[in-house]
Amino acid sequence: MSDTVKSLAVVGAGMIGASWAALASAHGIGVSAYDPNPEAEVGFRRYIERARAQLAELGLTGAGTVSFSADLATPLEGADFVQENGPENEAVKRKLLAEIDELLPPGAIIASSTSALVRSAIVADCARPERVVVAHPFNPPHLVPLVEIVGADPEVVTRAAAFYRTLGRRPVVLNREMPGHIANRLASALYREAVHLVEQGVASVADIDAALCNGPGLRWALMGPHMTYHLGGGEGGIAGYLAHLGPSQVRRWQSLGSPSLDMDVQTKIVAGVAEEAGGRSIAELEARRDEGLLALLKARTLVSE
Amino acid sequence: MSDTVKSLAVVGAGMIGASWAALASAHGIGVSAYDPNPEAEVGFRRYIERARAQLAELGLTGAGTVSFSADLATPLEGADFVQENGPENEAVKRKLLAEIDELLPPGAIIASSTSALVRSAIVADCARPERVVVAHPFNPPHLVPLVEIVGADPEVVTRAAAFYRTLGRRPVVLNREMPGHIANRLASALYREAVHLVEQGVASVADIDAALCNGPGLRWALMGPHMTYHLGGGEGGIAGYLAHLGPSQVRRWQSLGSPSLDMDVQTKIVAGVAEEAGGRSIAELEARRDEGLLALLKARTLVSE
Repeated sequence: MSDTVKSLAVVGAGMIGASWAALASAHGIGVSAYDPNPEAEVGFRRYIERARAQLAELGLTGAGTVSFSADLATPLEGADFVQENGPENEAVKRKLLAEIDELLPPGAIIASSTSALVRSAIVADCARPERVVVAHPFNPPHLVPLVEIVGADPEVVTRAAAFYRTLGRRPVVLNREMPGHIANRLASALYREAVHLVEQGVASVADIDAALCNGPGLRWALMGPHMTYHLGGGEGGIAGYLAHLGPSQVRRWQSLGSPSLDMDVQTKIVAGVAEEAGGRSIAELEARRDEGLLALLKARTLVSE
Repeated sequence: MSDTVKSLAVVGAGMIGASWAALASAHGIGVSAYDPNPEAEVGFRRYIERARAQLAELGLTGAGTVSFSADLATPLEGADFVQENGPENEAVKRKLLAEIDELLPPGAIIASSTSALVRSAIVADCARPERVVVAHPFNPPHLVPLVEIVGADPEVVTRAAAFYRTLGRRPVVLNREMPGHIANRLASALYREAVHLVEQGVASVADIDAALCNGPGLRWALMGPHMTYHLGGGEGGIAGYLAHLGPSQVRRWQSLGSPSLDMDVQTKIVAGVAEEAGGRSIAELEARRDEGLLALLKARTLVSE
């Protein structure tokens, strides 16, 4: 592989695969996609069309061609980079990655979008596991910049990160694998307490959601938790924060809940979300989210680094 | 008190008090401030000047006058609403709220900005505790919309929430008090896992921060965790999500860390934040945060509800 990716193979043409394809195509990179179901092509192309319109709003109007095949060997022929987006099932992914590894010319990189599985498990049947990385995006990948990378060969990781940077993504490299990588672990930790507050009847689902997106969530679109506390520490910064408020942070941790997700809690959450949605369909809410993400991404480009 | 607040007394003229004063003044509400330290006035007025320039960018150019006194009785005379921003010390706040309650005409509401204390403890010495609410803002209150309200009298809570709405804030009402209210508990839960990932060497402080603000943090500036999973559940929404992925969410919760904040971890965090800050001072980082918040707030006004 040369240092520039000219051809991306997208394996699995569902929503995540289509989003990757739209992003690469908008950056002028040719995309060849595979899905075992030939009928997936219609939805795949429809998603790409919508995503390309969004990306055009961000000024991304590249002309990478997009082809589709229900035969795995076709897109892998001559591909510089493979983004795999198969089902989140360990056995299925392990087999799929081994097949890709066998068919793909040596030197090309294979990246798995897996969110829930760890790299060591899914590369187990590959002949050349060192060229396989996890590269986990956030939904929708063509808008949310994060890509979490886990690999074994530092050179492969560096080349993969460079590729995602050319797609305008923000790669984050894990030093070692961890179930849920980084961001979903942070999200899961926050969600546990959100469920606890519902379980305890502290506030409505809608108000708990509003507390996040009108409070810390707004700041977290700009900076992470460590930097946030650095600015919350006054003149002493994070060192002052930890010295003075570290003990109260630890006490707070001890007071956090360990809710169950039993039927009673699930019923409360489902009813609360229905109330919050106020009759808007998932498609309407997704459109609003994407509209919002586009507006935020445009806004962030105006802010100095 | 009439339904419209014409005069706000700000007790405690530090950063939070000054931010409240700037916000009210920009909405055309007269502000009378108190701080026991007469020298606090200079910093108070300097903060307001800077905050008013930011609020002007959001189109808020009201002409509420701002006065300052080192005598508590002065600002309370004729005030419709008091925002207390004293030190986060239970004994100090309890005494201060009791003094305000004694001096303030009946009917006017007293709101405490406390982040760490619970209402029942700090109203203990008040003659009319029912008119005292917790109204906890997020820093900086003139930019971040969230106000978390805890009260005992529903009518007082309703009136307080209505006042914050006139200031363009998003009040969230807790059904019962909880240490850390809602948002800081969510932040604390997330931070525990962020510290765990540092402790375990999974990634650098800067990369953990980047994973949040380029991933879930970006989405959380638009919607809370429940709505996020509603959109992550496909056609089945949150009910489908909980039914299919609830068990894996619970397993994830069980895998989250319980780090300590010992000196070794603190040293890693402080060094990591210094690297992330890259020589930028806290003042520079704060200016960038506020610039970013302004841009995000403007962007959010463009997004349909």
